[in-house]
Amino acid sequence: MKIKAVVFDAYGTLYDTHSVAEVTEEAFPGYGDIITQLWRIKQLEYSWLRSLMRRYQDFAVVTRDSLVYTLRCLGLQYDEKTFDAIIEKYLHLDLYPDARIALDALKGRKLAILSNGGPETLNALVKNSGLDRVLDAAISVDSRKVFKPSPEAYTPIESELGVKPAEVLFVSSNPWDACGAKSFGLNVAWIERVTPEAMALACVESDLVAPLTMFKAIRTQMDELGVQPDHRIRSLSELPKVVAAYES
Amino acid sequence: MKIKAVVFDAYGTLYDTHSVAEVTEEAFPGYGDIITQLWRIKQLEYSWLRSLMRRYQDFAVVTRDSLVYTLRCLGLQYDEKTFDAIIEKYLHLDLYPDARIALDALKGRKLAILSNGGPETLNALVKNSGLDRVLDAAISVDSRKVFKPSPEAYTPIESELGVKPAEVLFVSSNPWDACGAKSFGLNVAWIERVTPEAMALACVESDLVAPLTMFKAIRTQMDELGVQPDHRIRSLSELPKVVAAYES
Repeated sequence: MKIKAVVFDAYGTLYDTHSVAEVTEEAFPGYGDIITQLWRIKQLEYSWLRSLMRRYQDFAVVTRDSLVYTLRCLGLQYDEKTFDAIIEKYLHLDLYPDARIALDALKGRKLAILSNGGPETLNALVKNSGLDRVLDAAISVDSRKVFKPSPEAYTPIESELGVKPAEVLFVSSNPWDACGAKSFGLNVAWIERVTPEAMALACVESDLVAPLTMFKAIRTQMDELGVQPDHRIRSLSELPKVVAAYES
Repeated sequence: MKIKAVVFDAYGTLYDTHSVAEVTEEAFPGYGDIITQLWRIKQLEYSWLRSLMRRYQDFAVVTRDSLVYTLRCLGLQYDEKTFDAIIEKYLHLDLYPDARIALDALKGRKLAILSNGGPETLNALVKNSGLDRVLDAAISVDSRKVFKPSPEAYTPIESELGVKPAEVLFVSSNPWDACGAKSFGLNVAWIERVTPEAMALACVESDLVAPLTMFKAIRTQMDELGVQPDHRIRSLSELPKVVAAYES
């Protein structure tokens, strides 16, 4: 079986969501990291809960709601201008350093994003980072009105790219997304953005586990969901080799 | 409209899931609290993710899987005996001090539990705590093969108790569960087991937010899901007053 399309998750895989930390740190000195991580945790929770409750809203709504929760939780006062400045950063996330190189190296195959992000946000993000010149499509789950890892959320890949699930390599750093894609029937590479060695070291260093490490702990290890991705990589630069192996 | 049935969430509402901390502390000195809280976070995540992925398994499986994740994440070695001793505690959770008093005060109405727990676990838990003598039913979501807050998970209340959603007061300490029940159409009281004052105090005390506080922060504040519970209480002892108000 040949891989005809490589499809990437956006947030946390191609784009570094923690690059928001600079803006949050500027707005709330000393709280940059904690805001960014708590925000991300609640953003994902809300996407799953709204999907389960059948109260789907554009990811931009979920993103705003989870930031409201986060600032309220930390007891931080804010005005509309500060709030909007933080949200705006979500349209200008930094690409991970290995993203563009990997995409260039994969040319010749269909290349796309499949993201929870709504069409408007996603198009802005892709354009602002210059990926619109490299990608064949930036696909949102929005047409299905449900977020990943619901099986429906992965169906637009076939309808948009005209490629069967078995011919797709899906790449995500999010364990739950990698599991969801595999459960749906795609070939899946999980990119481990935080290595277990770094994690273990930070975790056992002291009796009092550092909060930021614990936040990472919740979401960076491979999950126990009864399904496993096919490949485990440490950098997107490993992808050409992974794809080539399907052809031999 | 009269309230004909009061239905309680089990874990975190009637039963204190943190009462597991003693057993985990004994097994892994210094890690009791962190294990208990990380475990609970992942247990809920897995229930939502499995529901979304349509990979439902009995809650006992989710509970075991999330403990495996937790111990692996913290780099803790364990044998089968230690593992089983911790899991066993889930069948012997402590009741919150206000639980039995409130149930006695509500006599005359139908009283039940609606829980993510599987029938076997739930029956053992209820029997071990003596609540089998007070409750009309301990209802599991298991017959629907999906966890809360999916609307389907709340449907067994009507079929088991023969009471319409508008005649039910549902009580939960879990914000996502309170929102799910309200979205489904039940009357809902949210019991705030951690007060916002205690939370705010702990959160702003230092630049470095304590990890245990942050874990609580993820799950104890009311969520931003576009729906709100009808009542907000601080103790289950407020329930008779809440129920009576529907009759006047």
